[in-house]
Amino acid sequence: MTVKRHNVGPRMSQVVENGNTVYLAGLTADDPSQDVKGQTKQILAKIDNLLKLAGTDKSKVLSANIWLTDIATWSQMNEVWDAWVSPGNTPARATVEAKLAAPGLKVEIMVQAAK
Amino acid sequence: MTVKRHNVGPRMSQVVENGNTVYLAGLTADDPSQDVKGQTKQILAKIDNLLKLAGTDKSKVLSANIWLTDIATWSQMNEVWDAWVSPGNTPARATVEAKLAAPGLKVEIMVQAAK
Amino acid sequence: MTVKRHNVGPRMSQVVENGNTVYLAGLTADDPSQDVKGQTKQILAKIDNLLKLAGTDKSKVLSANIWLTDIATWSQMNEVWDAWVSPGNTPARATVEAKLAAPGLKVEIMVQAAK
Repeated sequence: MTVKRHNVGPRMSQVVENGNTVYLAGLTADDPSQDVKGQTKQILAKIDNLLKLAGTDKSKVLSANIWLTDIATWSQMNEVWDAWVSPGNTPARATVEAKLAAPGLKVEIMVQAAK
Repeated sequence: MTVKRHNVGPRMSQVVENGNTVYLAGLTADDPSQDVKGQTKQILAKIDNLLKLAGTDKSKVLSANIWLTDIATWSQMNEVWDAWVSPGNTPARATVEAKLAAPGLKVEIMVQAAK
Repeated sequence: MTVKRHNVGPRMSQVVENGNTVYLAGLTADDPSQDVKGQTKQILAKIDNLLKLAGTDKSKVLSANIWLTDIATWSQMNEVWDAWVSPGNTPARATVEAKLAAPGLKVEIMVQAAK
């Protein structure tokens, strides 16, 4: 099996494929002025695009790690998440609170998918 | 390879299989009034049951992420963990502090296993 | 496929192989008196050694989770990280803030690699 990488930067890659397993980077919103719902929407749109790069989609997501800078925003994030997931194909998931790399960022999501 | 899911909810699944790799959701105790040891016991019992759903068991756990709301409870969690693991078959593991989704929750554990 | 473990302890293993996927434990520095750069260097040297145990190396790292006790030290960690990664072969990565298991520890890194 070969490792295939997409959107390769000097620090990290956004997508890494190993056989039929796809690893995405932890993703944050481009516009940190948005609220949790807005940021979650931006992130999930990025995930859709990156999964497409690897020839897969959200119905194949295996697991997700979600970090919120304020765990009290859990329901707001979930509202957007629940509308996004592929019914019947929801991933394993864990959500915890953590401070993120830049001020204003309220959500970060990292997923693994099959292809 | 096909993705197989168990205990599928509208938000997440508790178990996701991709080939011979099994992803479990981040699990917390049902009874948040219990202390760290009690909660860890409840979680590890859930993990045993969920691994069984996927036709595997704790001797095949590959890696574990553990979150504690108070890292000072590390030894209490470990006391229960050390008694649970399959000797000679311990997983890769990382434990950090994080606030969890509901008040009272003191431990969350997310594992990946082989089958 | 068989699960192969290296540096197996009673609590966790430092390296777990499942087929061509390698899981490393969350690693911290041996000398917590070092600053973030020094600790990151120690951790990445450990990762190099552990990947070698599994017959692989940093050019095959798939994903990385990094925890910093102070997210403000992000750039210092990155300075060492950027010099370490294999150009063109950078992993998917997520970095968040979290308190770690022992006082003085400033960085923890957990990676998955192909072999």
